[in-house]
Amino acid sequence: MYKFILLTFSLLFAFGLSAQTDKAKPTNSDEDAFFIKDIYNKALTDGRSYDWLMYLTKEIGGRLSGSPEAAAAVEYTYQMLDSMNMDKVWLQPCIVPHWIRGEKEQCRMISQRMGTVDLTCIALGNSIGTGPSGVSGEVVEVMSLDEAEALGKAGKLKGKIVFYNRPFDQTQVNTMAAYGGAVGQRVYGPTTGAKYGAVGALVRSMTNRTDDIPHTGSTVYKDGHEIPAVALSTIDSDVLTEALKAEKSVRVYFKTDCKMLEPKMSYNVIGEIKGSEKPEEIILVSGHLDSWDIGTGAHDDGAGCVHAMDVIHIMNQLGYKPKRTIRCVLYMNEENGTAGAKAYRDSSNVRKEYHLAALESDRGGFTPRGFTFDGHEDVFRPKFKQIIEWLPLLEPYGLDFKKGGSGADVSYLKDQKGILIGFLPDSQRYFDYHHT
Amino acid sequence: MYKFILLTFSLLFAFGLSAQTDKAKPTNSDEDAFFIKDIYNKALTDGRSYDWLMYLTKEIGGRLSGSPEAAAAVEYTYQMLDSMNMDKVWLQPCIVPHWIRGEKEQCRMISQRMGTVDLTCIALGNSIGTGPSGVSGEVVEVMSLDEAEALGKAGKLKGKIVFYNRPFDQTQVNTMAAYGGAVGQRVYGPTTGAKYGAVGALVRSMTNRTDDIPHTGSTVYKDGHEIPAVALSTIDSDVLTEALKAEKSVRVYFKTDCKMLEPKMSYNVIGEIKGSEKPEEIILVSGHLDSWDIGTGAHDDGAGCVHAMDVIHIMNQLGYKPKRTIRCVLYMNEENGTAGAKAYRDSSNVRKEYHLAALESDRGGFTPRGFTFDGHEDVFRPKFKQIIEWLPLLEPYGLDFKKGGSGADVSYLKDQKGILIGFLPDSQRYFDYHHT
Repeated sequence: MYKFILLTFSLLFAFGLSAQTDKAKPTNSDEDAFFIKDIYNKALTDGRSYDWLMYLTKEIGGRLSGSPEAAAAVEYTYQMLDSMNMDKVWLQPCIVPHWIRGEKEQCRMISQRMGTVDLTCIALGNSIGTGPSGVSGEVVEVMSLDEAEALGKAGKLKGKIVFYNRPFDQTQVNTMAAYGGAVGQRVYGPTTGAKYGAVGALVRSMTNRTDDIPHTGSTVYKDGHEIPAVALSTIDSDVLTEALKAEKSVRVYFKTDCKMLEPKMSYNVIGEIKGSEKPEEIILVSGHLDSWDIGTGAHDDGAGCVHAMDVIHIMNQLGYKPKRTIRCVLYMNEENGTAGAKAYRDSSNVRKEYHLAALESDRGGFTPRGFTFDGHEDVFRPKFKQIIEWLPLLEPYGLDFKKGGSGADVSYLKDQKGILIGFLPDSQRYFDYHHT
Repeated sequence: MYKFILLTFSLLFAFGLSAQTDKAKPTNSDEDAFFIKDIYNKALTDGRSYDWLMYLTKEIGGRLSGSPEAAAAVEYTYQMLDSMNMDKVWLQPCIVPHWIRGEKEQCRMISQRMGTVDLTCIALGNSIGTGPSGVSGEVVEVMSLDEAEALGKAGKLKGKIVFYNRPFDQTQVNTMAAYGGAVGQRVYGPTTGAKYGAVGALVRSMTNRTDDIPHTGSTVYKDGHEIPAVALSTIDSDVLTEALKAEKSVRVYFKTDCKMLEPKMSYNVIGEIKGSEKPEEIILVSGHLDSWDIGTGAHDDGAGCVHAMDVIHIMNQLGYKPKRTIRCVLYMNEENGTAGAKAYRDSSNVRKEYHLAALESDRGGFTPRGFTFDGHEDVFRPKFKQIIEWLPLLEPYGLDFKKGGSGADVSYLKDQKGILIGFLPDSQRYFDYHHT
């Protein structure tokens, strides 16, 4: 159970925020400390996260937006929240992109020196397919979007397959920072290649590991510039770059069957406990239901969903009646569109809601290390100053508070000027599993 | 590579201590911070830990004291240290116990209600065997050594099989503390039972998990009170306790083939770089070579050995010449006797050595969380006060300094009145693997 102690932190945060605003000045009292201990003990001995996660990942599996599995996850989590004695549980509609992978991808390097070598690849999410004949072209390797732009302007990408091969910076202890430094080539690399006439794009997989497992993830086309795009495993990215060093011209052939279908109706799953004193102030805990299709979506983001759900379960177990409204939101479509987050924001703004705090868990289920905080520039500084005063209550559990991004979904609530919070688990092994 | 950044902390510590003692007052200067960054970067991109660990665990495997595998580990690590441009590399002899497991254990519960049920068990290290006919007896369950003492004094253990079933306290976020709260029954439970006439001992496995994998570990007999002892898996411990609740009398039969043979000669493996200015002050980095036989000994304590070895490798890579003597010690026989640690201490005391700092890594290879510090009561307080001033240099890497135990081997050096240090990695999953 102990991995899921993090869910209590969300809950704690809800309590903390309440306490903070209600009292004349912050008190990190013994009473608070004992209450936190109660939450911890309950989560460590009586949490339901692992059972739920087992169902989401092993019974349902990968939950790509628009898929039957995503629909099953909506139904399952709705039923679970509905069994938890909440004031209201509902489905909030959103229109999601419906991208499908189709048949298994093929990729081969054709070299004069080495002959034909199979490369392990996987189509990037949202990518167009190649059609049944595939694409073939000479490979041009680049290490950045800037380099691709420069080569493109010089006419050197026309008819070519552009190969984005920037690795993770292994000196980054925070692997999220290494991801941040490399992921731009996956998101905007293919469309940049397309703009200059490339016929296909290969992207080095986003991982710290050197292995033969390719990692998918979203790519975004701009201004109608679309070419088929795949991620190569890191081992085969190294194979290709070595071939390119030894030989002037190396070709790659690849074939993908993926396509974007008509958008589908899907849902955010939401449950709410009305606050007893200030129901108009909302504290939101969240994860996202959708995942990529090729794994089971345990770390991204089944873990985040069960964290948020267990906050409600543990409140029930402790018999706690919140002063403010607690809302558990399981967002749809974080991975390739954030349609759920936009629908939630739009609905919330129409109703003139105010989220005092919105917390997202979307960095996996490893050992809790703390929380990161973000917010609108008009209000962030004093709010964070206030929050940091509670840190001594959580330090005994090895947690830290930092400024930093919150989550892709909750960040849409920034204009409501509450505090945005991201749960921060250990990141060392996250990219061994991410999107794969 | 990033899991092994911890090795640099050892190195950093060596540097830190030097800096501290050499300067008029502590300075956490930019220069120090840059140097730490250099160490980190080198460890993250050019460490050798994983390759060495692969060899120790996959080529050699479990390394129980006195086994051929332990001898192979001595030879392998000697060769590795000897290739690293040290001033001196040597083998330090020690006489180790030679316990062997023999044939696979058998254990069965014989119940009137449930019939005969196989239980998954494993002999405890140092245990005597049952002989070919095994032992059989009614089971008496106890939750503590005190309870066993009380029942024993009342004559209720005579002819019985005593079953120590205290679980880990799951509310302990620090799993090492949960282990500390339960392990006494494994170490002294069997001998306590023997003292009062029990014929065998069962001990609940030392783990947070509920699974069917038994965990071994050392048991210690006192005053000649010896009975055969096995660990039961946590699932089968629960099966047995449920049977005992439903039925007055439940018997267990078990058979083990383990035995203690004649002691064997073995070795600590030691390498040294002489200090350029104060060679008489030794900074020791260490792990232990031996492991239990049933796994590959990766976390306990292959990781610790390669951490210590990589400190030397990285010093070489950085071209650093230490002012004080740096000694890498790979201890033998931590698991069931600490014969290597005693031999090292005796030799060191005869030579009137002084260990300014002695660091052991023996808590696994998970994400680094910090260090714990211990020392002789005459000197500890001011030393720790001095050390804590360096913490800001390491906080950017998510590390913390705490008072606490160092390591079973280096703690034998306490009387030299240096500082004793234990590396502290994340503990959440350690007892999933420990001794199994």
